[in-house]
Amino acid sequence: MTFTFWFEFASTYSYPAAMKLEHLAAERDIEVHWQPFLLGPIFQAQGWNDTPFKLFPAKGRYMWRDIERLCERDGIRFHRPSQFPRSGLLAARIVNWHAQEPWVPAFVRSVYRANFEHDQDIADPAVIANCLAEVKLDAEVLLKQSQRPEVKESLRKATERAQALGIFGAPFFMAGDEPFWGYDRMEQALDWYEARMDDEE
Amino acid sequence: MTFTFWFEFASTYSYPAAMKLEHLAAERDIEVHWQPFLLGPIFQAQGWNDTPFKLFPAKGRYMWRDIERLCERDGIRFHRPSQFPRSGLLAARIVNWHAQEPWVPAFVRSVYRANFEHDQDIADPAVIANCLAEVKLDAEVLLKQSQRPEVKESLRKATERAQALGIFGAPFFMAGDEPFWGYDRMEQALDWYEARMDDEE
Repeated sequence: MTFTFWFEFASTYSYPAAMKLEHLAAERDIEVHWQPFLLGPIFQAQGWNDTPFKLFPAKGRYMWRDIERLCERDGIRFHRPSQFPRSGLLAARIVNWHAQEPWVPAFVRSVYRANFEHDQDIADPAVIANCLAEVKLDAEVLLKQSQRPEVKESLRKATERAQALGIFGAPFFMAGDEPFWGYDRMEQALDWYEARMDDEE
Repeated sequence: MTFTFWFEFASTYSYPAAMKLEHLAAERDIEVHWQPFLLGPIFQAQGWNDTPFKLFPAKGRYMWRDIERLCERDGIRFHRPSQFPRSGLLAARIVNWHAQEPWVPAFVRSVYRANFEHDQDIADPAVIANCLAEVKLDAEVLLKQSQRPEVKESLRKATERAQALGIFGAPFFMAGDEPFWGYDRMEQALDWYEARMDDEE
């Protein structure tokens, strides 16, 4: 049984999840698989050519207020980006290819903070290079690698797996086979998994 | 400042909210305005001719699992209705017209339980008559009254007010001017209002 955190770098509600998850999982001795994917193709498959937060303006206005309130409550710095959504494609390719590496959670948080705390464009390789440097990685090597066909293809496959699992938004948590959608369900998902993880042993 | 509970009788997540709200509000000495409205016209305005839970099947499948889990956690009996969504138009007309009456919360709960616990068709006047009788009201008089033009018009106006407030889903809570969407935000909305209610006095 595995616990998988499915996230999209462009997603606002994935941001507080990425900031809190490692700590909450460690408290419960849960090993998390950090799995990026792209929401774009999934939205397109249901007839949306943009984020629902732009297609449905009332929902978008509410989301900005809600995420601001949530981050304040949970002690997470948040600054509404001047551009939304920003493409997380590059970062997602890197993380997906290196998903088993111990530096993944720290790098993911660095990318989220670039976008949602420092208002930087995460589609810009220079921004991602800074995030890689922050976790002591060789940005030049990793950025170059991210353009290889097999790296691109691997992320496409991950997004197809997300879709096959019925994932329609982010963040999304799979506690074994049990699906949990949204930052609001993160602790419930971890508790669910913790209870069954003990059963399995 | 007022605290308003905006709900739609067809809405699954409004059901646990309706079951829990009176108790949670009373603990905080909050007086709640129970305000039904219709999601149909609001969904239509954003190009949807049905509930998102049917238009987007993955989201629908997830919702049934999620609501079942939530109700189990919160001690609310839930039985997935054989028909979804069911029109809450008749019940919404009655409640909207009598929104100030002390019997409203009990009647609302009775209608929700008919749909989501007993799998009864709340579009059927005989079902609503039973719910009215359960709270000792004269069903014949109220059902007849619900067909008067001014009663119908008043509910249309309520739905227009919801739309003007930026309400795009249900349940929705307005704590003064502060918007909170979803059963997941009910306690946060009440806490928010409680804190400011004291400021005002």
